Amino acid sequence: MEKVYQFIEDHKDMYLDWLIELCKQPSVAVQNRVIRETINLVKNHLDDLNAKVEIIETPGNPIIFGELNSSKKKTLSFYNHYDVQPEDPVELWESPPFSPEIREGKLFARGVADNKGTLLSRICAVHAYQKVYGELPVNIKFIIEGEEEVGSPNLEWFADNHVEMIASDGCIWENGFKSIDGTLQISLGCKGMLYVELCAQGANTDLHSAKAAIIENPAWRLVWALSTLKNEKEEILIDGFYNRILPLTDEERALTEGIEYLEKEELEQLGVKHYVNHLTGFALKEKLIYQPTCTICGIESGYTDEGAKTVLPSKAKVKLDFRLVSEQDPGEILTLLRKHLDKHGFQDIEIIPLKGQRAAVTNITDPLVDKVIKSATKFYNKEPQVLRSQAGTGPMYKLCQKFGIPSVGFGVGNSNSKNHAPNENIFISDFLEGIKLSALVLHEFAD
Amino acid sequence: MEKVYQFIEDHKDMYLDWLIELCKQPSVAVQNRVIRETINLVKNHLDDLNAKVEIIETPGNPIIFGELNSSKKKTLSFYNHYDVQPEDPVELWESPPFSPEIREGKLFARGVADNKGTLLSRICAVHAYQKVYGELPVNIKFIIEGEEEVGSPNLEWFADNHVEMIASDGCIWENGFKSIDGTLQISLGCKGMLYVELCAQGANTDLHSAKAAIIENPAWRLVWALSTLKNEKEEILIDGFYNRILPLTDEERALTEGIEYLEKEELEQLGVKHYVNHLTGFALKEKLIYQPTCTICGIESGYTDEGAKTVLPSKAKVKLDFRLVSEQDPGEILTLLRKHLDKHGFQDIEIIPLKGQRAAVTNITDPLVDKVIKSATKFYNKEPQVLRSQAGTGPMYKLCQKFGIPSVGFGVGNSNSKNHAPNENIFISDFLEGIKLSALVLHEFAD
Repeated sequence: MEKVYQFIEDHKDMYLDWLIELCKQPSVAVQNRVIRETINLVKNHLDDLNAKVEIIETPGNPIIFGELNSSKKKTLSFYNHYDVQPEDPVELWESPPFSPEIREGKLFARGVADNKGTLLSRICAVHAYQKVYGELPVNIKFIIEGEEEVGSPNLEWFADNHVEMIASDGCIWENGFKSIDGTLQISLGCKGMLYVELCAQGANTDLHSAKAAIIENPAWRLVWALSTLKNEKEEILIDGFYNRILPLTDEERALTEGIEYLEKEELEQLGVKHYVNHLTGFALKEKLIYQPTCTICGIESGYTDEGAKTVLPSKAKVKLDFRLVSEQDPGEILTLLRKHLDKHGFQDIEIIPLKGQRAAVTNITDPLVDKVIKSATKFYNKEPQVLRSQAGTGPMYKLCQKFGIPSVGFGVGNSNSKNHAPNENIFISDFLEGIKLSALVLHEFAD
Repeated sequence: MEKVYQFIEDHKDMYLDWLIELCKQPSVAVQNRVIRETINLVKNHLDDLNAKVEIIETPGNPIIFGELNSSKKKTLSFYNHYDVQPEDPVELWESPPFSPEIREGKLFARGVADNKGTLLSRICAVHAYQKVYGELPVNIKFIIEGEEEVGSPNLEWFADNHVEMIASDGCIWENGFKSIDGTLQISLGCKGMLYVELCAQGANTDLHSAKAAIIENPAWRLVWALSTLKNEKEEILIDGFYNRILPLTDEERALTEGIEYLEKEELEQLGVKHYVNHLTGFALKEKLIYQPTCTICGIESGYTDEGAKTVLPSKAKVKLDFRLVSEQDPGEILTLLRKHLDKHGFQDIEIIPLKGQRAAVTNITDPLVDKVIKSATKFYNKEPQVLRSQAGTGPMYKLCQKFGIPSVGFGVGNSNSKNHAPNENIFISDFLEGIKLSALVLHEFAD
C-alpha cells in the first residue's frame, strides 16, 4: 500500500482542489440550490474513474449511482451524499460558507465535513488505487444521494426498486469523526429520527399586545405544550415513548466502557460548565449513543429584531427533532405525540411531520466490522474507538439493514468539525488520511 | 362651531394630504429612521399655526414642543408622538406600510392610527379654529415626542426638567378608538409596562443536534423558565406580582358595567373561537381594562426557515411584556422576576430590561373628564364609552399624574385599526370627526 500512499501524497494538492471545487457548490437540499451543477461535478469524477454512472431521477433530487465492476468476488459499496445543510446563521461564519478557506491547516466550508470531504476521500482512494495498481481488488459501487439532509425521502423507494443495483457485501457509511484526542471513531449504526414542526395559531392577524389580556397567545400555547413534552431532567414525557427501546447488551456495555471520552476538553471547547443532568463517565456515553432525544431545533414567533415591540403574535412554530434508537418507529412516535398533545388539551396545535427514519445497527461480529477495525488499527498503529451507533441519524436502515447489508461508518471529521453549524471544517491532514484509509479498507476487504 | 366644522369639510383634502405626507415617513424609533425629516414636517405645521416651537434635544430622539399663548385663563396641552412601530412582518401588508393607500374609505399606513392620525387631528383642529375665529379660546401646548414606541426613555427627564413648560390645566392624550359598534371611547388612564428580554446561552456555537443528547439546549431552558411564569389559566406565578393591585372601586365597577363590548363581533373579526379562559361579560372587560398581563411578544432560537435542519441552537431569547396596573412598579416587578427565575433554578437566564412605565389614572370627577364627555356626547349625539384605563400603555404617569395634570385620551382609530400590526388603518371619516371633536373640546374647555 506504500505506493498508493505515496501517490496520494504526490497528488494531495490536486485532491484538495477537487474538494475545494466541490465545496464551492451551495448544494442545499432544503432550498434546492445548484443540484444539477453539483451532480455534474461528482459525475465527472466518477467518469474519470471509468465508472458506469447512472443518474437516477426521483421526485426529489437525483441519486448518483456509479459502478466499477472488476468481476471480483466481493463488492464494496460507498454511501455518501452531495447535499449539505443550509449555511445560516451566515453572520457567524468567519469566512463565507461557500468560499472554502484554509486557516491553520483546516479547510472551512459548509458541507466539508458533512460530507463532501468523506465523499471525495472515497473517490480519491479509488482513483489512487487505480493509478498505482491498474485494477481494483473488489467491485465498487457508489451510492450518492442528494437529500440526506432532508431525511432521504426518496432513498427507500430507490433501494426497494433497485435491490440488485445496491446489493453488496458491505457498505462503508458516510460519516465519521476523530475523537477529541485524535483517535478515529468507527460506528456500526445510526440513530433514527422523527422531525416535526408544531404550529399554534392565534388571531388571524398580529395584534397590539394590549389585547393579550383577552386573546390567546399562540407563543404561550406552544411554550405550555412543549413544557409537557420534556422535563428539566431530560425525561421525555410522551406515554409509550420509551417502550421499544431494548436494554444494553453486555457487548454494548463493554464497547461503551472502552470509549475514552474526553469530557473536560469537550466542555472547555464548547464553553459549557457541565453536561445535561451533570452526567459523566459511562452514563454520559450511554446517553449520547443509546438514548433518544427530543430537541428544539428552532422556535419562532412574533417580533425578534432589536428592541421592544409590543405585539401579540398571530402564529408560533417550533421545529423538533426526536433522535430514535433501538426499535423505535418514527410513525408510531408521531401517533404517540398527537395523542400526548390531545391528552394535555393541545388539540389546537398542528403537527407537520417532516422526516422519519428508523435506527440501524450492524452486528459487531460481521466480517466487515473486523476488516475496518483491522485496517484502521494498522493504519494508525492504534485501535479505533468503536461506537455501537453514531449519535447522529442517517438512512442506514433503508439502504443496508433492511437488505441484510452490513455497514460501517468512518470519515474525515474532527471533534470540532461543526457539522450543521457555522464554521464547519476538517483538517486537511484528516482528508488525506481518509483517502489513504479508504484505499486500505478496499484493499483489505478483498481478502 | 358650525363654521369650524364647515371649514374642516371644505379643507378635508388638504388635511388628508398632510396625513398622507406624514405617514410616508418611516419614523421607526427603534431603528432610528428619518427622525429629523419627520420632525421638520411636524415643525412646519406648527410654524404655520404661528406656534412658538422648540426642538428639545435628548440623548435619544428630540421632543417637539409647540406653544400658542393667547393669554387665556386656561391652558390645554396635547400629548402625541411622531414615532411609529416597526412595519414587520412586512410581507403581510396588502400595500407597502410607508406608501399610504386609500381602500374602501380607509387609509392604510404604519402609524396612521398610532398615532399620526390623532396627532394631525389636533394640529388641524387648531388650524381650522384659528382660520375661522382668528384667535384661540385657550392657550395651547403641543408635546410631541419621538420615543413613545420604545417606552419614552427620555420623557421623564424632559418633564422633570421642564415643569413650567409642560404645566397645563388638562392634557388630551394621544390614543383612542371607536368600539366595534362605532361608539367613541375615551380613556382616563393607561396601563404601565415592564418590557424585558430573557436570554439563554448554550454552547458557544450551534451544534449538530445529535449533541443535544448531552449538551444543554438554551431553547429548552427558556421554554421551561417561561412555563414557570404563567400557567394555562393565565395566572402569573411570580411571587408578589399581584400585591400592589387595588380592588375595583364601586365607581370603576359601574363604569365597566356600562361598557357595551361586542364580543361575538370581535371574535369573528379576529377569527378566534373564544377569549382566554372562555371569559365573557364583566369578567372579560375587567381582565382587559384592570388586569396585568405577561405576554410573549417574540421568541427566537435556532433554525426557523423552511424545512428540517437538525441543529442544537447556541442561544435563545424571548421578548416579554408585562402590562402593569394600579400601583404596580416596573422596577419592583423586575426584581421579583429575577427572584422568581433564581428560585426556580434559572440563574443562568439573563434578563435585559428594555422599558418601564407606571400605570396612570385620572379621577373621573376631574372637570377635564366632564368637558370631554360632554363634547363627545354633543358631537355624536350619543354618550361615549368611558374606559377607566386603556388596555395599552403610555407615559401618562411621567408627563401628567406625577404633576397633578389630569389627562383624557381619545383618538381617530377604529376597532380594527391594527396598531402595531400589518395593515394598520383608520377611516378617513374618523380622521375628519377627530379634527372636529378636537376643535370642539378646545372650544368647550375655555368655559
